[in-house]
Amino acid sequence: MERLKYGMVGGGLGSYIGDVHRHAAQMDDLTELCAGCFSRSYETSLRTADAWGLDASRIYRDYKEMADKEAEREDGIDFVSITTPNVSHYEIARYFMERGIHVVCDKPLTLTLEQAVELEKIVEENDILFGVTYGYTGYPVIRQAREMIRSGAIGDIVHVRVQHPEDWVIESVSPEPGDELPWRFHPEMVGEALCTGDLGTHAEQLLVQFTGLHIHRVLAMLDTYPSYLPLETNTSVFMDLGEGRTGVLWASQIAIGKICSPAIYVIGTDGSLEWDHTQPDVLRYTKKGGPTQLLEAGKEYMSPQSNRLNRVSAGHHEGFYEAFGNIYRSYAQVLLAKKEGREADGYTFPDIHDGVDGMRFVHACVESQKKGNVWITL
Amino acid sequence: MERLKYGMVGGGLGSYIGDVHRHAAQMDDLTELCAGCFSRSYETSLRTADAWGLDASRIYRDYKEMADKEAEREDGIDFVSITTPNVSHYEIARYFMERGIHVVCDKPLTLTLEQAVELEKIVEENDILFGVTYGYTGYPVIRQAREMIRSGAIGDIVHVRVQHPEDWVIESVSPEPGDELPWRFHPEMVGEALCTGDLGTHAEQLLVQFTGLHIHRVLAMLDTYPSYLPLETNTSVFMDLGEGRTGVLWASQIAIGKICSPAIYVIGTDGSLEWDHTQPDVLRYTKKGGPTQLLEAGKEYMSPQSNRLNRVSAGHHEGFYEAFGNIYRSYAQVLLAKKEGREADGYTFPDIHDGVDGMRFVHACVESQKKGNVWITL
Amino acid sequence: MERLKYGMVGGGLGSYIGDVHRHAAQMDDLTELCAGCFSRSYETSLRTADAWGLDASRIYRDYKEMADKEAEREDGIDFVSITTPNVSHYEIARYFMERGIHVVCDKPLTLTLEQAVELEKIVEENDILFGVTYGYTGYPVIRQAREMIRSGAIGDIVHVRVQHPEDWVIESVSPEPGDELPWRFHPEMVGEALCTGDLGTHAEQLLVQFTGLHIHRVLAMLDTYPSYLPLETNTSVFMDLGEGRTGVLWASQIAIGKICSPAIYVIGTDGSLEWDHTQPDVLRYTKKGGPTQLLEAGKEYMSPQSNRLNRVSAGHHEGFYEAFGNIYRSYAQVLLAKKEGREADGYTFPDIHDGVDGMRFVHACVESQKKGNVWITL
Amino acid sequence: MERLKYGMVGGGLGSYIGDVHRHAAQMDDLTELCAGCFSRSYETSLRTADAWGLDASRIYRDYKEMADKEAEREDGIDFVSITTPNVSHYEIARYFMERGIHVVCDKPLTLTLEQAVELEKIVEENDILFGVTYGYTGYPVIRQAREMIRSGAIGDIVHVRVQHPEDWVIESVSPEPGDELPWRFHPEMVGEALCTGDLGTHAEQLLVQFTGLHIHRVLAMLDTYPSYLPLETNTSVFMDLGEGRTGVLWASQIAIGKICSPAIYVIGTDGSLEWDHTQPDVLRYTKKGGPTQLLEAGKEYMSPQSNRLNRVSAGHHEGFYEAFGNIYRSYAQVLLAKKEGREADGYTFPDIHDGVDGMRFVHACVESQKKGNVWITL
Repeated sequence: MERLKYGMVGGGLGSYIGDVHRHAAQMDDLTELCAGCFSRSYETSLRTADAWGLDASRIYRDYKEMADKEAEREDGIDFVSITTPNVSHYEIARYFMERGIHVVCDKPLTLTLEQAVELEKIVEENDILFGVTYGYTGYPVIRQAREMIRSGAIGDIVHVRVQHPEDWVIESVSPEPGDELPWRFHPEMVGEALCTGDLGTHAEQLLVQFTGLHIHRVLAMLDTYPSYLPLETNTSVFMDLGEGRTGVLWASQIAIGKICSPAIYVIGTDGSLEWDHTQPDVLRYTKKGGPTQLLEAGKEYMSPQSNRLNRVSAGHHEGFYEAFGNIYRSYAQVLLAKKEGREADGYTFPDIHDGVDGMRFVHACVESQKKGNVWITL
Repeated sequence: MERLKYGMVGGGLGSYIGDVHRHAAQMDDLTELCAGCFSRSYETSLRTADAWGLDASRIYRDYKEMADKEAEREDGIDFVSITTPNVSHYEIARYFMERGIHVVCDKPLTLTLEQAVELEKIVEENDILFGVTYGYTGYPVIRQAREMIRSGAIGDIVHVRVQHPEDWVIESVSPEPGDELPWRFHPEMVGEALCTGDLGTHAEQLLVQFTGLHIHRVLAMLDTYPSYLPLETNTSVFMDLGEGRTGVLWASQIAIGKICSPAIYVIGTDGSLEWDHTQPDVLRYTKKGGPTQLLEAGKEYMSPQSNRLNRVSAGHHEGFYEAFGNIYRSYAQVLLAKKEGREADGYTFPDIHDGVDGMRFVHACVESQKKGNVWITL
Repeated sequence: MERLKYGMVGGGLGSYIGDVHRHAAQMDDLTELCAGCFSRSYETSLRTADAWGLDASRIYRDYKEMADKEAEREDGIDFVSITTPNVSHYEIARYFMERGIHVVCDKPLTLTLEQAVELEKIVEENDILFGVTYGYTGYPVIRQAREMIRSGAIGDIVHVRVQHPEDWVIESVSPEPGDELPWRFHPEMVGEALCTGDLGTHAEQLLVQFTGLHIHRVLAMLDTYPSYLPLETNTSVFMDLGEGRTGVLWASQIAIGKICSPAIYVIGTDGSLEWDHTQPDVLRYTKKGGPTQLLEAGKEYMSPQSNRLNRVSAGHHEGFYEAFGNIYRSYAQVLLAKKEGREADGYTFPDIHDGVDGMRFVHACVESQKKGNVWITL
Repeated sequence: MERLKYGMVGGGLGSYIGDVHRHAAQMDDLTELCAGCFSRSYETSLRTADAWGLDASRIYRDYKEMADKEAEREDGIDFVSITTPNVSHYEIARYFMERGIHVVCDKPLTLTLEQAVELEKIVEENDILFGVTYGYTGYPVIRQAREMIRSGAIGDIVHVRVQHPEDWVIESVSPEPGDELPWRFHPEMVGEALCTGDLGTHAEQLLVQFTGLHIHRVLAMLDTYPSYLPLETNTSVFMDLGEGRTGVLWASQIAIGKICSPAIYVIGTDGSLEWDHTQPDVLRYTKKGGPTQLLEAGKEYMSPQSNRLNRVSAGHHEGFYEAFGNIYRSYAQVLLAKKEGREADGYTFPDIHDGVDGMRFVHACVESQKKGNVWITL
């Protein structure tokens, strides 16, 4: 069986998200890490390669050298995985794409909406397969929900509640100004929004992947606590989801007690579906008039599109690594099919358009807040 | 021990909420039902009296006769309990108050905000004790939360999420126009709002009783499904809670799978508190940096203000009757104290001001929607 | 509508379980408390009568006077409710029954198995309707389970797990000998077992009422902690339920963190049913091969036998008072039917045979432990 | 950083548990898969090697050739991972150990207790590091519990409840005899017990790793449903845990609705600890008299021994792969330390003695059942 060759930019020893990407990418034996520029420090990159058992000859001093050299090789990488902070996504992704190398990129897609739109154009011009790693959307039951909604299990969607609360800012930042803030709080590093970009986009994509719907307009209320921070830490959004459908989204970095609690609840004319990250392999399904059913990942009554994303037998948990791995698995399946000129058999993952939508969402929320909580079209 | 004498308007045989009121009122042997006008039909009133073992001589043909006669008696009722639909609350409450009789009234307080404001004036002019039966706020752990917040257990409140979803409209109304709608859907019977008045006010009062905060401004999004209904069935509200605090409220009558799910989550600078009606005797408390604690009603570590509202030993559930009973119990304790000219020792219940606030909330939400989802001051 | 007249022995002011009985009995307007001997102290009985608004002329100095006088009256009580500790159940119940007065009695039925068997004989000789108040079995979904099992929803029962853990002994008793122990710990007051009689019988009846099965043999392990106590505080039992069915029962008074956690799980050849007191209005139902369904009390899809025991609309909780009330409601319906010579339409409650079975269960467990954890036939 | 070299016997393409082992072993970059005999079919082994990117020169026709050749190489494997069914564990483990190669072996350890005892002897004679992969015990909060109990957080243990119910037999086997049964049901392949060996040992080891206690005696009740099966499918066990401590264990393969639900609850004199696989990263801790606390994996308040087993940030789930990975991680840390002649800094894993204990437990349960449910010393 052919395995895709790939390289990684960022994510060297000591990087949290780098490890997530690497384990996720290789979990299903569909890819092989062959090249990398894991750090601005070449020495760190080399040490990383050593620790991971990689060939030092394909470890590069910077991403440009990597893209140039890999593009030249006959056995060069099929795709690059970009795991750096979003400030550098644009330049790196662009450089690789212009050399014909496919891309998987962490979220949020870019620093600015303009960059995102430009990347989308480059993707199209170069026929690139571009994946964006919204990890939480990889849980098999999210895919189950998508299939059920598609097949009419809850009728037409009427209203959606989606959230992504965490507690990390309030637990790690002083309530009063003091020490210099880490890079994550600086607009020049993360863009025009903090919570909305960091967690709001996770919620937005959860909505998109779960329901298949897209956000048409938003009306946002952005709160900043502690108040001296330069960007917001708590985001509440009314959403116009088209054709009379509405929704409410909440993302928070100050939600004490909600360590990492994405959740979604979708009301349709004939039923509802609900998912909560505290039990990530359970989907709650209620037909109008009937009892709530707990659908469990891996059980035979689940759809094949969901069950093929499940590695362990029903009742055994899959965690964040595995959910993230499903983004890579689906991406790899589609890329393999693309290379072989065949259909990808329904595998899906957040793509460049989803990435751009995330940036549109962030920008529109910021605009809405600036203008006094008014509706903004995405 | 003296027991308060009271009468009831509405709530005769076959009335659901009437039974709730009667059981709730008499649960703690603080009150005695002595008089009533339970129905527009005198015969139904008499049959009701018979079924409940009441003296027929104090069963009246209409509420005016009841108020007049009871006011004249030396052993007349101390208070009246009004359990009719809100369309008639104003006239009935006013008539009793003008005769010096105290009032407990179901929610929402009146049909219009103007009526509510007028009642408030009459209450003050006549030194009336006026209670409004927001039943869900009677659970002992709601009172526990109030005391903890007062004493600084979570620091200063930053953000609040509160909800009251149910499914009864979507489960009982046809998706397409057809049969004539029951009275509950007619604006002339329920006022300018449906879901916001029916369930939104429950959520609003849950916020008030739990936190001690009040809503300063709202920005509301009201949805109507099925779309042919004359009033909204799904209400989402951004709230300005003063001094930079914000909140989001959700009430719904179309939430399939959420049979009756009020809940509240309050973030403070030092911790959070959370309550969910699915386990009504548990309060989730998280100190910043610490594990979530499950505080259980009736346990010794709970505050006396909470535990004195608990009738059964810890671990034994109290339900809707008992929560409702705590509104009456607290009302009765305050009324007994008032009659005896002493302090009521900290018993609280939703009063006339809370009732008016509920109506202000409804009106402001409707205004916000009409004007295109803008902020409206209450 | 006729209401049953009843009297109460024990349960005067300050009695916890007395209040439970009184509220439970009167909740549905089927009974009227007319007579009583609430305490060994006549003065306390009179004060109790005053607080509850009862006629002092039917308050008696002792239970014998009460039984004698009430039996003589034309409008004498239909039944007596015995809420004293189990040490006195036998003599009181016997005395009333011999005068033709029906009985509701708290659990466990008696002090000794011999007493229980004798009561059973008297019941039969005098055509007495005898109810035993195993309160937890009154929840509507317990009745739902019984109907579902009867109708084959889970096939043939294969195995049952049932439990009733609490924490009250370990939380209230010193780990080392010291102060004199309260009456509840003295064998002469409670009989040959502590935990097995107090809580084990609750679990045993939960099994009986939920499944319709009976225990044929037991093999018990009784633990005593703190070890200086005269009787056991933790009871584990293997059960032979006949025809190859087995079960395991656990009752505990030292289960820190399990305040009051009765629960039952029943495996059948085609499905399973599960109930847990932490959410007393939810029944978990799993068909073999299907997802778990959460059946909620009061919903239309529930059986009429369950829903007629529900007072509030679905989603509103009923608590311990209401569950207890269902024992009285069912008892009253059957007694009314008996008086009127008609069928009782399927109402059920734990009766004298269930009470005797509880005593047999306790005795067999004690025998099993004494003989070295061997099987004992009930 | 040095990485351990290892080989694998069994677990080739299509093997479920083989994939679990391989992902688990390599998750933390502490080991490198260098050699293997993945199947009885050499061709399958070669295809497996190809799919996994392994050097074909170290793929062997049988395990003996593999052990012999690897033992001769200077860069031979440090340890072998045995993932075959338990019928062949003994011969394979023995052969490798006799050549000085360390072993990780799946559970249950062997086919018979005699084999297990012999392996234990060989381990000691050859100074072998022998790990047994009881995967569920690898969750970080299991280690947290062990540390808390060691440090006295719940006082002295009084009683333990542990379970491991699943539904796979009842969901996959016909209720009546018919088709030939798969190998898993044949005593010559799995030994003298089915459920007790398959799942009972998981529960037994969960008890051991969580509490640090060992089972002294058992009294077991083994049920067989469907009754035509040659071995039991439902196991209930009373346990003597020494010094007056008792426990009850339950394992089941017919627990419809309990897909995979290991759980443990430990009562101590001063508190309790509880874990349930449905939320594998949460530990419930109750101090006597206090509220239950939900301790979450990865939070700062957790012990370092627990947190160093956590790969993702708090609130992000780790699943079965990661728990299994912690067995390998801990084994690898100890083996690396052993090779370097230093202390292993407190890493623990189920070892040969735990493996033998598991076999003693199974054998004693079978004996207990055979002799009529009597106490059997392990």
